[in-house]
Amino acid sequence: MTFDQDIKSTVRHIPDYPKPGILFHDITTLLADARAFRRAVDELVHPWAGSKVDKVAGIEARGFILGGAVAHQLSAGFVPIRKKGKLPHTTVRIAYSLEYGIDEMEMHADAVQPGERVILVDDLIATGGTAEGAVKLLRQIGADVVAACFIVDLPDLGGAAKLRAMDVPVRTLMAFEGH
Amino acid sequence: MTFDQDIKSTVRHIPDYPKPGILFHDITTLLADARAFRRAVDELVHPWAGSKVDKVAGIEARGFILGGAVAHQLSAGFVPIRKKGKLPHTTVRIAYSLEYGIDEMEMHADAVQPGERVILVDDLIATGGTAEGAVKLLRQIGADVVAACFIVDLPDLGGAAKLRAMDVPVRTLMAFEGH
Repeated sequence: MTFDQDIKSTVRHIPDYPKPGILFHDITTLLADARAFRRAVDELVHPWAGSKVDKVAGIEARGFILGGAVAHQLSAGFVPIRKKGKLPHTTVRIAYSLEYGIDEMEMHADAVQPGERVILVDDLIATGGTAEGAVKLLRQIGADVVAACFIVDLPDLGGAAKLRAMDVPVRTLMAFEGH
Repeated sequence: MTFDQDIKSTVRHIPDYPKPGILFHDITTLLADARAFRRAVDELVHPWAGSKVDKVAGIEARGFILGGAVAHQLSAGFVPIRKKGKLPHTTVRIAYSLEYGIDEMEMHADAVQPGERVILVDDLIATGGTAEGAVKLLRQIGADVVAACFIVDLPDLGGAAKLRAMDVPVRTLMAFEGH
Protein backbone atom coordinates (compact mmCIF):
# COMPACT_ATOMS: atom_id res chain seq x y z
CA MET A 1 0.00 0.00 0.00
CA THR A 2 1.06 3.59 -0.53
CA PHE A 3 1.81 5.92 2.36
CA ASP A 4 -1.63 7.53 2.13
CA GLN A 5 -3.60 4.31 1.75
CA ASP A 6 -1.77 2.91 4.73
CA ILE A 7 -3.02 5.71 7.00
CA LYS A 8 -6.43 5.87 5.30
CA SER A 9 -7.09 2.20 6.01
CA THR A 10 -6.96 2.86 9.78
CA VAL A 11 -10.14 5.00 9.69
CA ARG A 12 -13.26 3.06 10.73
CA HIS A 13 -16.56 3.67 8.92
CA ILE A 14 -19.78 3.32 10.90
CA PRO A 15 -23.04 3.17 8.90
CA ASP A 16 -26.17 4.95 10.15
CA TYR A 17 -24.38 6.97 12.83
CA PRO A 18 -25.38 9.30 14.38
CA LYS A 19 -28.58 8.73 12.40
CA PRO A 20 -29.90 6.54 9.53
CA GLY A 21 -28.30 7.28 6.16
CA ILE A 22 -25.16 8.89 7.58
CA LEU A 23 -21.79 7.13 7.25
CA PHE A 24 -19.63 8.23 10.17
CA HIS A 25 -15.85 8.35 9.67
CA ASP A 26 -14.36 7.35 13.02
CA ILE A 27 -10.75 8.49 13.39
CA THR A 28 -10.32 7.07 16.91
CA THR A 29 -8.91 3.92 15.27
CA LEU A 30 -6.31 6.05 13.47
CA LEU A 31 -5.39 7.86 16.70
CA ALA A 32 -5.07 4.55 18.59
CA ASP A 33 -2.60 3.23 15.96
CA ALA A 34 0.73 4.65 17.15
CA ARG A 35 2.34 4.54 13.72
CA ALA A 36 -0.64 6.01 11.85
CA PHE A 37 -1.11 8.78 14.44
CA ARG A 38 2.54 9.79 14.33
CA ARG A 39 2.70 9.70 10.52
CA ALA A 40 -0.56 11.65 10.20
CA VAL A 41 0.68 14.42 12.51
CA ASP A 42 4.08 14.64 10.85
CA GLU A 43 2.63 14.59 7.34
CA LEU A 44 -0.01 17.20 8.21
CA VAL A 45 2.53 19.77 9.44
CA HIS A 46 5.28 18.94 6.95
CA PRO A 47 4.84 22.16 4.87
CA TRP A 48 5.36 24.33 7.99
CA ALA A 49 8.16 22.33 9.63
CA GLY A 50 10.77 24.94 8.71
CA SER A 51 8.71 28.09 9.16
CA LYS A 52 7.64 30.09 12.18
CA VAL A 53 4.25 29.11 13.63
CA ASP A 54 3.35 30.85 16.89
CA LYS A 55 0.16 29.05 17.85
CA VAL A 56 -1.93 26.04 16.92
CA ALA A 57 -5.66 26.50 17.51
CA GLY A 58 -7.67 23.31 18.07
CA ILE A 59 -11.45 23.03 17.95
CA GLU A 60 -13.19 21.21 20.84
CA ALA A 61 -13.16 18.28 21.33
CA ARG A 62 -11.45 16.01 18.76
CA GLY A 63 -9.43 18.93 17.41
CA PHE A 64 -7.78 19.13 20.84
CA ILE A 65 -6.14 15.71 20.41
CA LEU A 66 -4.64 16.44 17.01
CA GLY A 67 -3.98 20.09 17.87
CA GLY A 68 -1.99 19.18 20.99
CA ALA A 69 0.19 16.82 18.97
CA VAL A 70 0.65 19.33 16.12
CA ALA A 71 1.57 22.14 18.54
CA HIS A 72 4.13 19.87 20.20
CA GLN A 73 5.57 18.80 16.85
CA LEU A 74 5.93 22.44 15.69
CA SER A 75 7.10 23.71 19.11
CA ALA A 76 4.17 26.14 19.02
CA GLY A 77 1.73 27.20 21.73
CA PHE A 78 -1.76 25.69 21.82
CA VAL A 79 -5.02 27.66 21.88
CA PRO A 80 -8.37 25.97 22.58
CA ILE A 81 -11.51 27.06 20.73
CA ARG A 82 -14.38 25.90 22.93
CA LYS A 83 -18.12 25.70 23.10
CA LYS A 84 -19.48 28.76 24.93
CA GLY A 85 -19.24 29.01 28.71
CA LYS A 86 -16.24 26.74 29.21
CA LEU A 87 -13.32 29.19 29.30
CA PRO A 88 -12.58 30.93 32.61
CA HIS A 89 -11.16 34.30 31.49
CA THR A 90 -12.29 37.10 29.15
CA THR A 91 -13.38 35.65 25.81
CA VAL A 92 -14.33 36.62 22.29
CA ARG A 93 -17.37 34.78 20.91
CA ILE A 94 -18.89 34.05 17.53
CA ALA A 95 -22.02 32.32 16.26
CA TYR A 96 -21.59 29.57 13.68
CA SER A 97 -23.85 27.36 11.59
CA LEU A 98 -24.51 23.73 12.43
CA GLU A 99 -26.45 21.31 10.26
CA TYR A 100 -29.57 22.36 12.15
CA GLY A 101 -29.50 25.82 13.68
CA ILE A 102 -26.61 27.79 15.15
CA ASP A 103 -24.32 27.60 18.16
CA GLU A 104 -21.56 29.77 19.61
CA MET A 105 -17.85 29.19 20.14
CA GLU A 106 -15.31 31.11 22.19
CA MET A 107 -11.62 31.66 22.71
CA HIS A 108 -9.70 33.68 25.28
CA ALA A 109 -9.30 37.27 24.06
CA ASP A 110 -5.59 37.22 24.98
CA ALA A 111 -4.87 33.77 23.51
CA VAL A 112 -3.30 35.17 20.35
CA GLN A 113 -1.39 38.44 19.92
CA PRO A 114 -2.06 40.55 16.80
CA GLY A 115 0.05 39.35 13.87
CA GLU A 116 0.86 35.95 15.33
CA ARG A 117 0.93 33.10 12.82
CA VAL A 118 -1.70 30.50 13.66
CA ILE A 119 -2.56 27.08 12.20
CA LEU A 120 -6.14 25.90 12.76
CA VAL A 121 -6.57 22.16 13.38
CA ASP A 122 -9.55 19.81 13.51
CA ASP A 123 -10.04 16.14 12.75
CA LEU A 124 -12.48 16.50 9.85
CA ILE A 125 -13.94 19.16 7.57
CA ALA A 126 -17.47 18.69 6.23
CA THR A 127 -19.65 21.74 5.51
CA GLY A 128 -16.98 23.92 7.14
CA GLY A 129 -19.35 25.92 9.33
CA THR A 130 -17.30 25.35 12.46
CA ALA A 131 -13.95 26.00 10.76
CA GLU A 132 -15.29 29.16 9.10
CA GLY A 133 -16.40 30.45 12.52
CA ALA A 134 -13.01 29.59 14.01
CA VAL A 135 -11.15 31.49 11.26
CA LYS A 136 -13.36 34.56 11.79
CA LEU A 137 -12.80 34.37 15.55
CA LEU A 138 -9.02 34.13 15.14
CA ARG A 139 -8.96 37.04 12.69
CA GLN A 140 -11.17 39.08 15.05
CA ILE A 141 -8.29 39.16 17.56
CA GLY A 142 -5.68 39.82 14.89
CA ALA A 143 -4.30 36.36 14.12
CA ASP A 144 -2.64 35.63 10.79
CA VAL A 145 -4.31 32.31 9.90
CA VAL A 146 -1.59 30.69 7.81
CA ALA A 147 -3.38 27.37 7.27
CA ALA A 148 -6.18 25.05 8.30
CA CYS A 149 -5.33 21.33 8.65
CA PHE A 150 -7.67 18.36 8.85
CA ILE A 151 -7.07 14.63 8.66
CA VAL A 152 -10.30 13.94 6.75
CA ASP A 153 -11.95 15.97 3.99
CA LEU A 154 -15.52 15.38 2.79
CA PRO A 155 -15.17 17.43 -0.41
CA ASP A 156 -18.78 16.89 -1.52
CA LEU A 157 -19.85 19.08 1.41
CA GLY A 158 -17.69 22.01 0.31
CA GLY A 159 -15.98 22.98 3.56
CA ALA A 160 -12.42 23.13 2.22
CA ALA A 161 -13.58 25.22 -0.75
CA LYS A 162 -15.32 27.60 1.68
CA LEU A 163 -12.08 28.16 3.62
CA ARG A 164 -10.01 28.63 0.46
CA ALA A 165 -12.51 31.31 -0.62
CA MET A 166 -11.56 33.08 2.66
CA ASP A 167 -7.88 32.95 1.57
CA VAL A 168 -7.02 30.22 4.06
CA PRO A 169 -4.71 27.50 2.66
CA VAL A 170 -6.23 24.10 3.49
CA ARG A 171 -4.32 20.86 4.01
CA THR A 172 -6.03 17.47 4.37
CA LEU A 173 -4.62 13.94 4.35
CA MET A 174 -7.49 11.95 2.86
CA ALA A 175 -10.92 12.39 1.32
CA PHE A 176 -14.11 10.32 1.43
CA GLU A 177 -17.05 10.72 -0.92
CA GLY A 178 -20.56 11.54 0.27
CA HIS A 179 -21.22 12.39 3.90
CA MET B 1 13.90 31.13 38.27
CA THR B 2 14.24 27.37 38.50
CA PHE B 3 12.94 25.10 35.80
CA ASP B 4 9.78 24.31 37.78
CA GLN B 5 9.04 27.89 38.84
CA ASP B 6 9.47 28.97 35.25
CA ILE B 7 6.68 26.67 34.06
CA LYS B 8 4.59 27.20 37.19
CA SER B 9 4.54 30.97 36.65
CA THR B 10 2.69 30.53 33.34
CA VAL B 11 -0.45 29.19 35.07
CA ARG B 12 -3.14 31.85 35.57
CA HIS B 13 -5.18 31.91 38.78
CA ILE B 14 -8.77 33.12 38.57
CA PRO B 15 -10.54 33.90 41.87
CA ASP B 16 -14.20 32.98 42.39
CA TYR B 17 -14.44 30.76 39.31
CA PRO B 18 -16.59 28.83 38.58
CA LYS B 19 -18.21 30.04 41.82
CA PRO B 20 -17.42 32.28 44.82
CA GLY B 21 -14.63 30.98 47.06
CA ILE B 22 -13.03 28.77 44.40
CA LEU B 23 -9.61 29.68 42.96
CA PHE B 24 -9.44 28.26 39.42
CA HIS B 25 -6.04 27.25 38.05
CA ASP B 26 -6.16 28.10 34.34
CA ILE B 27 -3.57 26.16 32.35
CA THR B 28 -4.56 27.66 28.98
CA THR B 29 -1.85 30.30 29.55
CA LEU B 30 0.71 27.51 30.00
CA LEU B 31 -0.49 25.74 26.84
CA ALA B 32 -0.35 28.99 24.83
CA ASP B 33 3.29 29.54 25.86
CA ALA B 34 5.23 27.45 23.32
CA ARG B 35 8.26 26.99 25.52
CA ALA B 36 6.30 26.13 28.67
CA PHE B 37 4.02 23.71 26.80
CA ARG B 38 6.92 21.86 25.21
CA ARG B 39 8.90 21.68 28.45
CA ALA B 40 5.85 20.53 30.43
CA VAL B 41 5.14 17.69 27.98
CA ASP B 42 8.77 16.60 27.81
CA GLU B 43 9.24 16.77 31.58
CA LEU B 44 5.98 14.91 32.23
CA VAL B 45 6.94 11.89 30.10
CA HIS B 46 10.65 11.91 30.90
CA PRO B 47 10.52 8.75 33.11
CA TRP B 48 8.97 6.72 30.25
CA ALA B 49 11.00 8.13 27.37
CA GLY B 50 13.04 4.94 27.05
CA SER B 51 10.36 2.37 27.86
CA LYS B 52 7.53 0.86 25.85
CA VAL B 53 4.21 2.69 26.14
CA ASP B 54 1.46 1.40 23.85
CA LYS B 55 -1.28 3.95 24.44
CA VAL B 56 -1.89 7.29 26.06
CA ALA B 57 -5.44 7.75 27.38
CA GLY B 58 -6.67 11.34 27.66
CA ILE B 59 -9.72 12.49 29.59
CA GLU B 60 -12.18 14.85 27.80
CA ALA B 61 -11.71 17.72 27.19
CA ARG B 62 -8.49 19.37 28.46
CA GLY B 63 -6.82 15.97 28.84
CA PHE B 64 -7.11 15.61 25.06
CA ILE B 65 -4.72 18.52 24.44
CA LEU B 66 -1.99 17.26 26.73
CA GLY B 67 -2.70 13.62 25.87
CA GLY B 68 -2.31 14.22 22.14
CA ALA B 69 1.06 15.87 22.71
CA VAL B 70 2.23 13.16 25.13
CA ALA B 71 1.19 10.37 22.75
CA HIS B 72 3.08 12.07 19.92
CA GLN B 73 6.18 12.58 22.09
CA LEU B 74 6.18 8.89 23.15
CA SER B 75 5.22 7.60 19.67
CA ALA B 76 2.22 5.90 21.30
CA GLY B 77 -1.39 5.60 20.17
CA PHE B 78 -4.03 7.90 21.68
CA VAL B 79 -7.27 6.75 23.32
CA PRO B 80 -10.06 9.21 24.22
CA ILE B 81 -12.07 8.76 27.43
CA ARG B 82 -15.27 10.69 26.83
CA LYS B 83 -18.48 11.76 28.46
CA LYS B 84 -21.21 9.22 27.70
CA GLY B 85 -22.91 9.16 24.31
CA LYS B 86 -20.08 10.70 22.28
CA LEU B 87 -18.22 7.65 20.95
CA PRO B 88 -19.60 5.99 17.80
CA HIS B 89 -18.64 2.34 18.31
CA THR B 90 -19.12 -0.29 21.07
CA THR B 91 -18.08 1.17 24.42
CA VAL B 92 -17.42 0.23 28.02
CA ARG B 93 -18.89 2.64 30.56
CA ILE B 94 -18.37 3.49 34.23
CA ALA B 95 -20.01 5.82 36.73
CA TYR B 96 -17.74 8.23 38.61
CA SER B 97 -18.12 10.76 41.41
CA LEU B 98 -18.25 14.49 40.78
CA GLU B 99 -18.28 17.17 43.47
CA TYR B 100 -22.07 16.97 43.41
CA GLY B 101 -23.56 13.68 42.22
CA ILE B 102 -22.29 11.22 39.66
CA ASP B 103 -21.75 11.05 35.90
CA GLU B 104 -20.63 8.41 33.44
CA MET B 105 -17.60 8.14 31.14
CA GLU B 106 -16.92 5.82 28.22
CA MET B 107 -14.17 4.45 26.03
CA HIS B 108 -14.25 2.20 22.98
CA ALA B 109 -14.17 -1.46 24.07
CA ASP B 110 -11.47 -2.21 21.48
CA ALA B 111 -9.35 0.87 22.19
CA VAL B 112 -6.81 -1.05 24.28
CA GLN B 113 -5.76 -4.68 23.94
CA PRO B 114 -5.30 -6.79 27.11
CA GLY B 115 -1.83 -6.28 28.58
CA GLU B 116 -1.06 -3.07 26.70
CA ARG B 117 0.87 -0.49 28.70
CA VAL B 118 -1.16 2.71 29.08
CA ILE B 119 -0.39 6.13 30.57
CA LEU B 120 -3.41 8.15 31.73
CA VAL B 121 -3.19 11.92 31.16
CA ASP B 122 -5.22 14.89 32.36
CA ASP B 123 -4.42 18.53 33.03
CA LEU B 124 -5.17 18.58 36.77
CA ILE B 125 -5.93 16.20 39.62
CA ALA B 126 -8.14 17.40 42.48
CA THR B 127 -10.34 14.87 44.33
CA GLY B 128 -9.38 12.25 41.76
CA GLY B 129 -12.91 11.00 41.10
CA THR B 130 -12.54 11.27 37.34
CA ALA B 131 -9.06 9.74 37.26
CA GLU B 132 -10.13 6.88 39.55
CA GLY B 133 -13.01 6.10 37.17
CA ALA B 134 -10.67 6.23 34.18
CA VAL B 135 -8.21 3.79 35.79
CA LYS B 136 -11.05 1.36 36.58
CA LEU B 137 -12.35 1.65 33.02
CA LEU B 138 -8.89 0.98 31.53
CA ARG B 139 -8.35 -2.02 33.83
CA GLN B 140 -11.82 -3.33 32.95
CA ILE B 141 -10.62 -3.93 29.37
CA GLY B 142 -7.28 -5.35 30.50
CA ALA B 143 -4.95 -2.35 30.29
CA ASP B 144 -1.76 -2.23 32.34
CA VAL B 145 -1.97 1.34 33.71
CA VAL B 146 1.72 2.13 34.16
CA ALA B 147 1.23 5.73 35.30
CA ALA B 148 -1.09 8.72 35.59
CA CYS B 149 0.32 12.13 34.65
CA PHE B 150 -1.06 15.59 35.43
CA ILE B 151 0.40 19.06 35.08
CA VAL B 152 -1.24 20.37 38.28
CA ASP B 153 -1.78 18.59 41.60
CA LEU B 154 -4.07 19.92 44.34
CA PRO B 155 -2.71 17.66 47.09
CA ASP B 156 -5.10 18.95 49.78
CA LEU B 157 -7.93 17.26 47.85
CA GLY B 158 -6.26 13.83 47.96
CA GLY B 159 -6.60 12.69 44.35
CA ALA B 160 -2.98 11.64 43.80
CA ALA B 161 -3.00 9.69 47.08
CA LYS B 162 -6.19 7.95 45.96
CA LEU B 163 -4.54 6.77 42.72
CA ARG B 164 -1.37 5.63 44.51
CA ALA B 165 -3.58 3.54 46.82
CA MET B 166 -4.77 1.82 43.61
CA ASP B 167 -1.11 1.02 42.78
CA VAL B 168 -0.95 3.64 40.02
CA PRO B 169 2.30 5.65 39.97
CA VAL B 170 1.41 9.35 39.75
CA ARG B 171 3.52 12.09 38.19
CA THR B 172 2.68 15.79 38.49
CA LEU B 173 4.70 18.89 37.63
CA MET B 174 3.47 21.41 40.19
CA ALA B 175 1.22 21.66 43.23
CA PHE B 176 -1.05 24.41 44.53
CA GLU B 177 -2.49 24.57 48.04
CA GLY B 178 -6.21 24.67 48.74
CA HIS B 179 -8.70 24.15 45.90
